[in-house]
Amino acid sequence: MDALLERSPLGNPHTDIRAAEASPLSPDLLRRMHGYWRAANYLSVGQIYLRANPLLERPLTLADIKPRLLGHWGTTPGLNLLYVHFNRLIVEHDLDMIAIIGPGHGGPGIVAQTYLEGSYTERYPAIERSRGGMERLFRQFSWPGGIPSHVAPETPGSIHEGGELGYSLAHAYGAAFDNPDLIVACVIGDGEAETGALAASWHSNKFLNPARDGAVLPILHLNGFKIANPTVLARIGDEELASLLRGYGHEPFFVEGDDPMFVHQQLAGALDTVLDHIRTIQREARSATPSGLRPRWPMIVLRTPKGWTGPKIVDGKPVEGTWRAHQVPIADFDNPEHLVLLEAWMRSYRAEELFDATGKFREEFASLAPTGHRRMGSNPHANGGELMRSLALPNFRSHAVALTAPGGVRAPATATLGSYLKEAMALNLGASNMRLFGPDETASNRLQAVYDVTGKTWMAETEPNDTDLAQDGRVMEVLSEHLCQGWLEGYLLTGRHGLFSCYEAFVHIVDSMVNQHAKWLTTTRTIPWRKPIASLNYLLTSHVWRQDHNGSSHQDPGFLDHVANKTAEVTRIYLPPDANCLLSVADHCLRSRNYVNVIVAGKQPEWQWLTIDEAVRHCTTGAGIWDWASDDGDPDVVLACAGDVPTLETLAATTLLREYVPDIRIRVVNVVDLMVLQPQSEHPHGMDDRAFDAMFTTDRPVIFAFHGYPSLVHRLAYARHGHHNFHVRGYKGEGTTTTPFDMVVMNDLDRYRLALDAIERVPRLKDRVPAETARYWGLMERHKLYVAEQGDDLPEVRDWQWTR
Amino acid sequence: MDALLERSPLGNPHTDIRAAEASPLSPDLLRRMHGYWRAANYLSVGQIYLRANPLLERPLTLADIKPRLLGHWGTTPGLNLLYVHFNRLIVEHDLDMIAIIGPGHGGPGIVAQTYLEGSYTERYPAIERSRGGMERLFRQFSWPGGIPSHVAPETPGSIHEGGELGYSLAHAYGAAFDNPDLIVACVIGDGEAETGALAASWHSNKFLNPARDGAVLPILHLNGFKIANPTVLARIGDEELASLLRGYGHEPFFVEGDDPMFVHQQLAGALDTVLDHIRTIQREARSATPSGLRPRWPMIVLRTPKGWTGPKIVDGKPVEGTWRAHQVPIADFDNPEHLVLLEAWMRSYRAEELFDATGKFREEFASLAPTGHRRMGSNPHANGGELMRSLALPNFRSHAVALTAPGGVRAPATATLGSYLKEAMALNLGASNMRLFGPDETASNRLQAVYDVTGKTWMAETEPNDTDLAQDGRVMEVLSEHLCQGWLEGYLLTGRHGLFSCYEAFVHIVDSMVNQHAKWLTTTRTIPWRKPIASLNYLLTSHVWRQDHNGSSHQDPGFLDHVANKTAEVTRIYLPPDANCLLSVADHCLRSRNYVNVIVAGKQPEWQWLTIDEAVRHCTTGAGIWDWASDDGDPDVVLACAGDVPTLETLAATTLLREYVPDIRIRVVNVVDLMVLQPQSEHPHGMDDRAFDAMFTTDRPVIFAFHGYPSLVHRLAYARHGHHNFHVRGYKGEGTTTTPFDMVVMNDLDRYRLALDAIERVPRLKDRVPAETARYWGLMERHKLYVAEQGDDLPEVRDWQWTR
Repeated sequence: MDALLERSPLGNPHTDIRAAEASPLSPDLLRRMHGYWRAANYLSVGQIYLRANPLLERPLTLADIKPRLLGHWGTTPGLNLLYVHFNRLIVEHDLDMIAIIGPGHGGPGIVAQTYLEGSYTERYPAIERSRGGMERLFRQFSWPGGIPSHVAPETPGSIHEGGELGYSLAHAYGAAFDNPDLIVACVIGDGEAETGALAASWHSNKFLNPARDGAVLPILHLNGFKIANPTVLARIGDEELASLLRGYGHEPFFVEGDDPMFVHQQLAGALDTVLDHIRTIQREARSATPSGLRPRWPMIVLRTPKGWTGPKIVDGKPVEGTWRAHQVPIADFDNPEHLVLLEAWMRSYRAEELFDATGKFREEFASLAPTGHRRMGSNPHANGGELMRSLALPNFRSHAVALTAPGGVRAPATATLGSYLKEAMALNLGASNMRLFGPDETASNRLQAVYDVTGKTWMAETEPNDTDLAQDGRVMEVLSEHLCQGWLEGYLLTGRHGLFSCYEAFVHIVDSMVNQHAKWLTTTRTIPWRKPIASLNYLLTSHVWRQDHNGSSHQDPGFLDHVANKTAEVTRIYLPPDANCLLSVADHCLRSRNYVNVIVAGKQPEWQWLTIDEAVRHCTTGAGIWDWASDDGDPDVVLACAGDVPTLETLAATTLLREYVPDIRIRVVNVVDLMVLQPQSEHPHGMDDRAFDAMFTTDRPVIFAFHGYPSLVHRLAYARHGHHNFHVRGYKGEGTTTTPFDMVVMNDLDRYRLALDAIERVPRLKDRVPAETARYWGLMERHKLYVAEQGDDLPEVRDWQWTR
Repeated sequence: MDALLERSPLGNPHTDIRAAEASPLSPDLLRRMHGYWRAANYLSVGQIYLRANPLLERPLTLADIKPRLLGHWGTTPGLNLLYVHFNRLIVEHDLDMIAIIGPGHGGPGIVAQTYLEGSYTERYPAIERSRGGMERLFRQFSWPGGIPSHVAPETPGSIHEGGELGYSLAHAYGAAFDNPDLIVACVIGDGEAETGALAASWHSNKFLNPARDGAVLPILHLNGFKIANPTVLARIGDEELASLLRGYGHEPFFVEGDDPMFVHQQLAGALDTVLDHIRTIQREARSATPSGLRPRWPMIVLRTPKGWTGPKIVDGKPVEGTWRAHQVPIADFDNPEHLVLLEAWMRSYRAEELFDATGKFREEFASLAPTGHRRMGSNPHANGGELMRSLALPNFRSHAVALTAPGGVRAPATATLGSYLKEAMALNLGASNMRLFGPDETASNRLQAVYDVTGKTWMAETEPNDTDLAQDGRVMEVLSEHLCQGWLEGYLLTGRHGLFSCYEAFVHIVDSMVNQHAKWLTTTRTIPWRKPIASLNYLLTSHVWRQDHNGSSHQDPGFLDHVANKTAEVTRIYLPPDANCLLSVADHCLRSRNYVNVIVAGKQPEWQWLTIDEAVRHCTTGAGIWDWASDDGDPDVVLACAGDVPTLETLAATTLLREYVPDIRIRVVNVVDLMVLQPQSEHPHGMDDRAFDAMFTTDRPVIFAFHGYPSLVHRLAYARHGHHNFHVRGYKGEGTTTTPFDMVVMNDLDRYRLALDAIERVPRLKDRVPAETARYWGLMERHKLYVAEQGDDLPEVRDWQWTR
């Protein structure tokens, strides 16, 4: 044990990290495991190529071959090998284990494996474990109306879409957190390992507590090639690679070879060893006297040929062991030799030994698989909704900001939420199913109240001056948006709950990850056996309008546009105008399922508008007329707003207007749930046209002050009757390090500009524009002079308070 | 030398990697360098705090303090230390050297340094090297109308905005490529090191050829803390860290301490050693008999306290050496003790010894800086436009697809471009200023013709079956979009040229990076001394409509929306409908400056529409009526299209319409340059309203078939007179692994749907809809039956050819 915990000097990898050359598998077990592997490989090739003659009962003909050949063979035999060996480990040790398949291209392999173990047929009864079922299994693969070529939501046992590479290891850690009895095997492709997200993920082991969390077993699969190139990690030598992996905090065990029998024994031995190490680490950490030291977790490096057992040479060019094995190694069946080659390849697996005449997998092999929920394709952790328990959530009303009148008090929105989250965290400490994620920004985003009940997870070294770090903390902080997102996804997909708080501008770093998660959620809605999981909740704060310290690089509200592109079924965007609305929205999001919820709220103390009861009503409707800020009856102009800063500027504009144009009739509309702007036909939250028309009018100018890019409001509302009257102000890309008020001025979102917009668009007031314009420019001039003097905001801006 | 090249066993880092404890600096040089450092630190603190009394000629008063305190102190003293030491190295060895500052928060430090060396005043004459200049230097920092708090485009000597962390090392490699005499020092913050992009960047050294490229000197600065947390790399122990860095292929030299005099000597010694190693590596690689082995490049780990030399304790809490030093260590000057503390801190630098009474930096210190272009703030590599030479570009017409009539021939667009790029590459081999970047997709994207003239850069191990790898290749392939983007940005910013080809869906991985680069370009347009650089060119292919192998995860055209959010001044989006248009557009983009150009084009063989001359005319206008596909005169309906697949479906729809509704009058409009849709007031490419109205009409239905999300067309065209007649079809999030034709069917972009859209919107044809609808549904039914049979595309779809 000591050797695992201590930072021992690094020796030559070839002398101390190679798995012992024992032969842990008996000849009979070896034979049967090899047969199981052949069966999985056979079924994988069948999926890629065949639409008939699944058992090769007669010679292959062109009519048996699919007209379009799609799929990825290269990574598949390696994945099949690992799956067979994981099965042995599960059965021998009664393990609770799932596998994350980083090289998701190996879809046919994992489909074949779950078919062989029976999980597939239980989920898809039409794909029977028979000759006919096998034919349907082959035909459906990569085919219209069938199944995708990647490991996907449709694949039993998967929580990881294998299309966009890089997220396997982060997902694995997310799955392992708070699942002390779970082992998450994570197969990492050597191509995938070049991505940024994966490269960052190795350090996740500094955030995994062996006493409380499960184990992640990384298996770096060096098959040597990507689509068309060798991989970096396969070409730096074992010694440098071992040094790298030790630097990541792992003890690597190398398994290498191209002789299946040798590799079976090596791999079995290595898996026995790493399981023993994992058990030792966990036993120590869970003992009465744990050392508290971060362990050196074991891992495996598996080096086998790409496209192993596939054709060695095609058209005179080497295929097995090269990048040419990546997709479909034999194509173009106009060449008659190719049919011969394919048939020889498929017959090399001797399917007749593996399947009986009815297509049933022979019992001597089938009996090697685990049963019931121990099968990786049926493990409930990989269908997290089955295990999910709702959070115990506090009464958010008890955290409300008290106010007797709109604009009567200032309060910081996210800090208010922090107080609610603290109580929520406390209520679920026992259930261990809630975590908060942030890229080193939880306190910067003012949510630090949660530290009163739980710390920040930290397994690395500590120093006396450290604050709020804890090995069993539930706040996950690392300076990587990729890791926050990947961990949270893995945590949600295995049936738990969380919130990701992030600087608004930098959440773009995970644009592509939220894309893939939204696609996953969309697909799972059509898969009956996939149970709903908790929503992916974002709190975007430190937002575009308040980046005083940081300036232009930190100013971008475009994530809203990005999310709005995703299917309406799964996306929700909330712009609470004050702290009480934020409470109401956040509580709703934490209770919701299968959504991507984006909440945007500032962290600075700002004026508060609604009591908690008003806030709940407002957020439930999603948008509403603020009567207390509006004139009765028919308005001259509608001042609409969405977002906290736009709301402030809009209300300030009404006070300006009432002072200088007292006979103007204003209606103030606030939008919390941005999707109400869309027609009901486009989004389930869409407001019906009658209500929309009544709120915004169809014939009055609407000055819409918006948190993000103005085009988003236009695109959501373009089909509305009154849309041609919408005049939207928002972020237009102007920004630098400056005062908050100067930011709104630079983007024409300030109170003076909004007031002027209103006057200019009301016909009966238009002739009074010149004087008001002068007034406007006079005020702005003062502002400019003021900042030129390096003073603060305009006093009247800073000190402004709502009056009616 | 051998030790640098061979993979020697790893020993104990404490015995062999610590810099020799010599004292390379003479007492006088040490004293002067320390003085230089104090001066830079003093100016840094002054920028954060002072608006008056810059030389502390009288006791500090509250009136001297800025009312808003912004900026980041923590990382600054470390950056200042390194800059002083880089200066020594440059002077002693006459180095051509620039520095990339990863912890960009240290803006005040780099501004101070370039001020001390004189570069700053040359760029900004108002900031004189005098008492008054110093006061203006202080006042402008983080102030409206002044300069940002990060290292930014405004900072002389910078090619790296320090706001969004993670891209420093990739930028450094991009700068070093093809600059054999350049040394790029790259300071990597230990917070930044946790990001995905940075974690992936370490492996860039497998792509740097010491014979041809310059050197990158990474300096990992362990100041131990991020905003509010310790950093991972500072808390894993020196041994594990050394193992990690060796695993990355580096030989690390550790410099650690908090005694300035000790650290000065250690750092000087380490820099001497690493420079010697670099020179040795380069000499060997450039000798007559190079080994061809990848060297183990030296690097430095610098461990010094965060906020070094700042206040040790504030309000009873430790600050120096903790996360509390991150931003402004002393704030809240309502507390009178804080003023005392600040004054003591500033006086600890003894500015009177460093600056004379006029504010001039004393010569004994100032003379330590390099002069002229050797100053890092004046090195032309950091203002790449100064060095940029235009590419020699071939006559793209000679690569054109020959066609005698529209739709007369099929050709693959990107392969045609590949032939042009091959010649372009060949023409610029001598100038060594053009590279092609792609995440393992250059051949998949059909650009592999370039391999005829140059290989894929590869310095790692090779095997006999490898193809097209070369140590001096000019195609950069790594499975990391972050690296492709970061390398290319660094390459462009230092005055060279390139193209990034990427799967369309996965370019979202670099959404945030293109954000930051676009912001950089926007800002530099307002900085007269920043010379224009070559545009950032994307070729997005393997696009949403043709992902037969991969399915839903690979289907997303949202990058266009993302880019369209950026300032119109810098963004261009092109959707060439065929190969000849792609040639014309690509040639234009490679000649352009200071833009982000996005080109979308498919890689499959498709029908060709325009001769090269027609293509040039069409692309120059950006959009046009295709007369050969249109009826003369006033149309019943406009069929508009943008993108290759939408163009195909649109033209097929016209043939359907002409067959079944022969009296319909159709106009076909094709849009290449998407920005023509915007009003001229919004985008310089915007078509003027009269031309737009003439093309699209103001009163006829426009069925717009679009490559991406339909909302993008609406948002660009919403202010057009005829916009209410626009009916846009495009990607609406539907997709899986299926046939290309099924993809357009799923998204209602297919020819039948477009034809039906047209009929439904022409009043005089409306009554004939039922029959046509039946026809439509009959065809679609056949299609569905067909795919259910696992056949191929509808024969009439696959075999369709344009006729008029």
